[in-house]
Amino acid sequence: MQRIPALDESARQLARERIDGLVKPLGALGRLEDLAAWLCAAHNTVPPRPLDDVRVVVFAGDHGVSASAAVSAYPREITAAMVRVFLSGTSGVSVLARQVGAHVRVLDIAVDGDLDDVPSEVRAFKVRRGSEPIDTTDALAPGEAVRGFAVGRAVADEEIDAGADLLIPGDMGIGNTTIASALVAATLGVPVPDVVGTGTGVDDDGRARKIAVIEAALARAGERVRDPFELLTALGSACAAATAGFLVQAAVRGVPVLLDGVFSGAAALVAREIAPEAAQWWLAGHRSTEPSQAFALKALGLEPILDLGLRLGEGSGAVQAVPVLRGARAVLAEMGRLADLA
Amino acid sequence: MQRIPALDESARQLARERIDGLVKPLGALGRLEDLAAWLCAAHNTVPPRPLDDVRVVVFAGDHGVSASAAVSAYPREITAAMVRVFLSGTSGVSVLARQVGAHVRVLDIAVDGDLDDVPSEVRAFKVRRGSEPIDTTDALAPGEAVRGFAVGRAVADEEIDAGADLLIPGDMGIGNTTIASALVAATLGVPVPDVVGTGTGVDDDGRARKIAVIEAALARAGERVRDPFELLTALGSACAAATAGFLVQAAVRGVPVLLDGVFSGAAALVAREIAPEAAQWWLAGHRSTEPSQAFALKALGLEPILDLGLRLGEGSGAVQAVPVLRGARAVLAEMGRLADLA
Repeated sequence: MQRIPALDESARQLARERIDGLVKPLGALGRLEDLAAWLCAAHNTVPPRPLDDVRVVVFAGDHGVSASAAVSAYPREITAAMVRVFLSGTSGVSVLARQVGAHVRVLDIAVDGDLDDVPSEVRAFKVRRGSEPIDTTDALAPGEAVRGFAVGRAVADEEIDAGADLLIPGDMGIGNTTIASALVAATLGVPVPDVVGTGTGVDDDGRARKIAVIEAALARAGERVRDPFELLTALGSACAAATAGFLVQAAVRGVPVLLDGVFSGAAALVAREIAPEAAQWWLAGHRSTEPSQAFALKALGLEPILDLGLRLGEGSGAVQAVPVLRGARAVLAEMGRLADLA
Repeated sequence: MQRIPALDESARQLARERIDGLVKPLGALGRLEDLAAWLCAAHNTVPPRPLDDVRVVVFAGDHGVSASAAVSAYPREITAAMVRVFLSGTSGVSVLARQVGAHVRVLDIAVDGDLDDVPSEVRAFKVRRGSEPIDTTDALAPGEAVRGFAVGRAVADEEIDAGADLLIPGDMGIGNTTIASALVAATLGVPVPDVVGTGTGVDDDGRARKIAVIEAALARAGERVRDPFELLTALGSACAAATAGFLVQAAVRGVPVLLDGVFSGAAALVAREIAPEAAQWWLAGHRSTEPSQAFALKALGLEPILDLGLRLGEGSGAVQAVPVLRGARAVLAEMGRLADLA
């Protein structure tokens, strides 16, 4: 893997000095000041460049876990149907992305359904159909985690080559919160009941089934979870691997990432195991209602910009944080200076 | 005062049903769902109308309290200088408003300075220069609270007649957080030390002086604080009265308001004493770092949309919540329906 560039701490320091000289009390812009300084460090210039070209990539796929145990409130046929909704521009993130002028691309990474009717480029990065139930067998076949990771890197390269200033990983897949919770529990060693939430809306019995599946999966995988690609193979999914690759390659290319909810948070944890330096290029866009995201973000040292109670995935939370980032840049670029105060 | 229209609860209910039929899990859009339904109730139509024309009015003025005791980290000469910064479009809220296409208007309501150099329309609503120190005497002369309130109503009318879809009250004035804390403590009967924060950046001694000033003012005013106009006269300011009038008139005209920080929160509490029905037309844009805002919003039953740690005033927090409101409208207007899922 190529070297991951470091953030420019001298630009961050210069930004801090510039911010302290703006026409406002010291620190009065709160989080915007931190974000503005971070963007300067990422862009190696003060003020930072505009964030005009924002791109969401939605990694869509199914999980065997949803077939073996009722861990979701929805059947997995939904995943294929949702790909068509994304293509029609009427998904939640499609609508919210239009509000901020962001582009949304959906990719069939591992949908367990017939998508012959969608444009072939949507299926160009497909790794496999669905995955195996993690409580009884590995999610992926040997080599598929590495392939998924490479797919995610290639997609990041395509988006960055096309001009992306900011990348947002989205996810769509029935069973995603179960996989995300498994990855967080395995990576951080947190007790499974602490990380498992209600996902898109399961009841207490559903939540108990999620916990049982994950505990069985962790017991089965044992020490293999200490290797990130073995972890992705045993407990993950092709989408988790692709998201991790996407996050790492954004860092390799020095392009900021806004993480979304629990799935990208879990993938980020695994990605950091693969490439520790990559994590400095990521921000957290939105607090998920899923408890495992809080564990993941705490471990990554990230505080979400927004907390709007969303639990949709798709990149829908992160995309709404884009105006805050643009605002942070704008105050540094456009506000007057205390020194010029008449 | 004219009758304040009620929100349309049947439109809110219809919106809720429509939202539950969108292509997403039940409740998965969190706060956006509540905001979308609220907008439908306010606009009496599903989906709600676009929020294209957003207008911030910054009420600028000084306080005698800042001359009598050092309650602020800044001298009050700053207030007049800041009016010029607003007019040059380089204030914090000016920059952030441009990001969301909102209009900013600054008004000299009670600046204690020479503003002969600014356009006369900026001074057209001036009530007085500064105010009296509240610990020793009434802030305003008899009749000035009523006049300030009328000024705020007239300004709201002008902005609504010019096409405002959403109004944001901004504030600028050295000493504002002291006045806001006094109004909140008086209205809610909260112990003064519980509501007083560090404002734009005073130290512990400064905070102790703020507490002493407010406690002296409350002791002096006694039972008069039970009448909202007497309260504004004794402990308030022309800006507080104008902001209260602005909030009430927006409600009379049926135009939604996004409250900003501690000053508009305190003015909203007083405005509700004057016109209890008005409060249904207000949302809270941003959580202030000042403790008195939390008391005010709790009493008003409002939860801020954003929490970015700002303590600038000016409307700078609320204006950043505009994209969230627009997003809430957009999901209802543009998302696909579950019933159409292939």
